[in-house]
Amino acid sequence: MPTPTENLARLKWTLPPPPEPKGSYAPAVRANHMVYVAGQGAFRGGEVLHPGLVERDVSIPQAQEAAQLATFQALSAVQSLIGTIDRIERIVRVQVFVASSPGFTQQHVVANGATEPLVAIFGEPGRPSRVAVGVPALPLNFPVEVELWAQLWAVPG
Amino acid sequence: MPTPTENLARLKWTLPPPPEPKGSYAPAVRANHMVYVAGQGAFRGGEVLHPGLVERDVSIPQAQEAAQLATFQALSAVQSLIGTIDRIERIVRVQVFVASSPGFTQQHVVANGATEPLVAIFGEPGRPSRVAVGVPALPLNFPVEVELWAQLWAVPG
Amino acid sequence: MPTPTENLARLKWTLPPPPEPKGSYAPAVRANHMVYVAGQGAFRGGEVLHPGLVERDVSIPQAQEAAQLATFQALSAVQSLIGTIDRIERIVRVQVFVASSPGFTQQHVVANGATEPLVAIFGEPGRPSRVAVGVPALPLNFPVEVELWAQLWAVPG
Repeated sequence: MPTPTENLARLKWTLPPPPEPKGSYAPAVRANHMVYVAGQGAFRGGEVLHPGLVERDVSIPQAQEAAQLATFQALSAVQSLIGTIDRIERIVRVQVFVASSPGFTQQHVVANGATEPLVAIFGEPGRPSRVAVGVPALPLNFPVEVELWAQLWAVPG
Repeated sequence: MPTPTENLARLKWTLPPPPEPKGSYAPAVRANHMVYVAGQGAFRGGEVLHPGLVERDVSIPQAQEAAQLATFQALSAVQSLIGTIDRIERIVRVQVFVASSPGFTQQHVVANGATEPLVAIFGEPGRPSRVAVGVPALPLNFPVEVELWAQLWAVPG
Repeated sequence: MPTPTENLARLKWTLPPPPEPKGSYAPAVRANHMVYVAGQGAFRGGEVLHPGLVERDVSIPQAQEAAQLATFQALSAVQSLIGTIDRIERIVRVQVFVASSPGFTQQHVVANGATEPLVAIFGEPGRPSRVAVGVPALPLNFPVEVELWAQLWAVPG
């Protein structure tokens, strides 16, 4: 079975640099075998990717692209903390906040932009429990914010 | 002391069928002794129960009814994963998102629709830590989305 | 190295009384070595501190003050459950919901009001993973709601 790193290469995906916190918090915190990554909004070339509200300013495919990039930033934060994403046993939970125009109710479709790539990279252990909700606004005008928790393999003695 | 299953029967409540994911995620994920259930919106007869914004479209009692049914769907997801809700030691955390009209600030009252039944079923171990907030819109126009985490009894050796 | 309690005293901060639940939930729940505190809104003298939407009704400094007080209420809930905040090894995660005027996108600045004091009290182990998002309304018209999780030191045998 290919490793997550091998799957990334096969899919021609590369992880972005690890995110830098925009405030007084840590990019990721480990407690026991769980890594909790801080909420991510997508940056490309130092700029917020597709700023604004989904539907009014941002299309669903653009929001899915932002959700995927935010998810990759989260994986990069895990990699930065523990060395490699191949130590991830399971993606346990993903929470997706979608900055939404009034009346927009397809947040679950946007959230697939975060979770479908996880299944492609990690297989069924990449399929997380998920929360997807609309919000009126996000920090820095992000269209999507993604939080991810990863469970690590216990290291053999 | 009656079991959770016996309490359900005494209260004449039945759990709905386990929820089917509306996207690329798992209904529930277990990590160690914790089960993390994906955010639930209430369905009845295949339709969203009481769609819309609370206060403008949906009354508080209707929203509480949706919160209760979403909570029962979450318990059904736990049951589907581990066989019986009697293996639940503690409801650890419930997060309730309430699709809210502008100015509606009674989300905590709506959230009681999720958590009061848990205390009725599990006793004091059913009283969780809780988050309740308003949001402008939820997937599929749900009025309420409920996320639930359950800690399981350690199985004796 | 000073203890968290000594840091509190040095900074001339005192924790407020432990919060009373506004509904059917527990102020804090412990599972293994983690304490999950229920979402906190700031009260002062029995009244909601700075009610309303940030930007329209509440300034950023006022919202930061509310975030700090809500965080101190959360620490008070931990103290009430386990006796002292000196048993906290790590602040693992803080989730901040900011009741936001349309177009307000500085939720991360408000959230610093919650997390900067944690670093002052606990040092680097007080720097948590963080989620900060806007919402249209919170229970009781709170401007900010703060959820906090603390990992405890394992007690030596």
